[in-house]
Amino acid sequence: MTKQQLFDNILHKQSFLCVGLDTDIQKIPLHLLELDDPVFSFNKAIVDATRKYCVAYKLNWAFYESLGAKGLISLEKTVDYIRRNHPDQFIIADAKRGDIGNTSEMYARAVFDYVDYDAVTVSPYMGEDSVKPFLIYPSKWVILLALTSNNGSHDFQLTASTTGERLFEKVLRKSQEWASDDQIMYVVGATQGKILKEIRKIVPNHFLLVPGVGAQGGSLKEVAKYGMNKQCGLLVNSSRQIIYSDCSEAFAEAAAKEAKKVQEEMTEYLKWTPKEK
Amino acid sequence: MTKQQLFDNILHKQSFLCVGLDTDIQKIPLHLLELDDPVFSFNKAIVDATRKYCVAYKLNWAFYESLGAKGLISLEKTVDYIRRNHPDQFIIADAKRGDIGNTSEMYARAVFDYVDYDAVTVSPYMGEDSVKPFLIYPSKWVILLALTSNNGSHDFQLTASTTGERLFEKVLRKSQEWASDDQIMYVVGATQGKILKEIRKIVPNHFLLVPGVGAQGGSLKEVAKYGMNKQCGLLVNSSRQIIYSDCSEAFAEAAAKEAKKVQEEMTEYLKWTPKEK
Repeated sequence: MTKQQLFDNILHKQSFLCVGLDTDIQKIPLHLLELDDPVFSFNKAIVDATRKYCVAYKLNWAFYESLGAKGLISLEKTVDYIRRNHPDQFIIADAKRGDIGNTSEMYARAVFDYVDYDAVTVSPYMGEDSVKPFLIYPSKWVILLALTSNNGSHDFQLTASTTGERLFEKVLRKSQEWASDDQIMYVVGATQGKILKEIRKIVPNHFLLVPGVGAQGGSLKEVAKYGMNKQCGLLVNSSRQIIYSDCSEAFAEAAAKEAKKVQEEMTEYLKWTPKEK
Repeated sequence: MTKQQLFDNILHKQSFLCVGLDTDIQKIPLHLLELDDPVFSFNKAIVDATRKYCVAYKLNWAFYESLGAKGLISLEKTVDYIRRNHPDQFIIADAKRGDIGNTSEMYARAVFDYVDYDAVTVSPYMGEDSVKPFLIYPSKWVILLALTSNNGSHDFQLTASTTGERLFEKVLRKSQEWASDDQIMYVVGATQGKILKEIRKIVPNHFLLVPGVGAQGGSLKEVAKYGMNKQCGLLVNSSRQIIYSDCSEAFAEAAAKEAKKVQEEMTEYLKWTPKEK
């Protein structure tokens, strides 16, 4: 999916919500456990219920890998289901990959050839040749970790170099040498709302994937205020707050209600955007 | 496996070789492709042929994930096979994971509960709470990326902070606050041989996992010279040079021959070690 197509979907749906399918078998409604593939059944119901209110789904691989190969089957079925039935959705493999070149090539095959994701999250620690193999696929995206939403982000990401540049700022600057804003996005945690203003000085035109709204305490209004650009430039992820808002048989309706609430708030913020036409 | 057990195995086998099972379906001998599970069949033959000459196997997940769920099945079968038949081997999940706390918990479940690895490689970029969930498992190990063997390691890992400390040095120092050398090892690329001397000043007692010997150009002698400590303190990984040394039906014997050659070289270097008894 191109940047323009993503922006068009955002305008059409009046939403920049990404629903995180962090599906934990220990948290899904009990009645689903009797089915053949409870994780896929849960995801399918959540997707069908929320698709009107979001433009993207993010699948965090940890939750699937914790179930071994059968978790991966649920993951692949989910991506395939979204791709076939809701082709306007942007599908993110939240795998935080990154390895030496020949190994990153294998990861790229895994997410773009074997399964048809639109984007994959990548850790920048190993540098350019760990990221580049993901960039050879047209209309596919790397979402590079820059400033994450957890406490541990303070340990290394905020370390200032001798030039005064903090590590996450160097990641933002340096990675622009590898590809344009048509192929790279950045992960920026919502718990660091005001810092978005500084980040926008370095990456004014890039899309940012913003986790941490909701369960992790970030404010959507603050993210929109400091992070939005002329093409919206934001995908705000919400996982637990939406998908686990109810654990009865009415879980999907409850998720839809939560997603709709966020989408309606987003509509307000999208009015702030000077639309590029 | 405890540190002492690992050292005992190294002395017993006179080897600190880790064989990397970077099994690429496009590179294995053609006659295996007719079998039900070519990847597992290749791994099984390689393990049976090389086990006398090594103390560890490292399974790089990228190669398995590139085949989707069925690749993960081959991966799990391989770990299970090694665990049952060669219980003295140290088994490493080379997955370079790391995510916010609740997600790293899921990754930890994947590698230590669902599959019985001894260790997992973790990226430090997201800091303490992304690493800690892996540390609650007794006798299991985190192998934290410090200084990797690829060119991209120069992009961020060598960046000096205002105090003059380079990022990889900060990772080595800071992470010692999280757990002892009984639970953490570090990845240090062999292509940076002499830098091992500096690294040993910061982490004198830790085990180091050293990739990059062989195909990536690192020298084993240099690694041993600068990296060895009183309990050996090294696991040197070799993948391509061993597992793909021959692509005929005699591939396993050829791999054994290559592994034996490395092991014999290691025996020489182990004589340098003042043994702790």
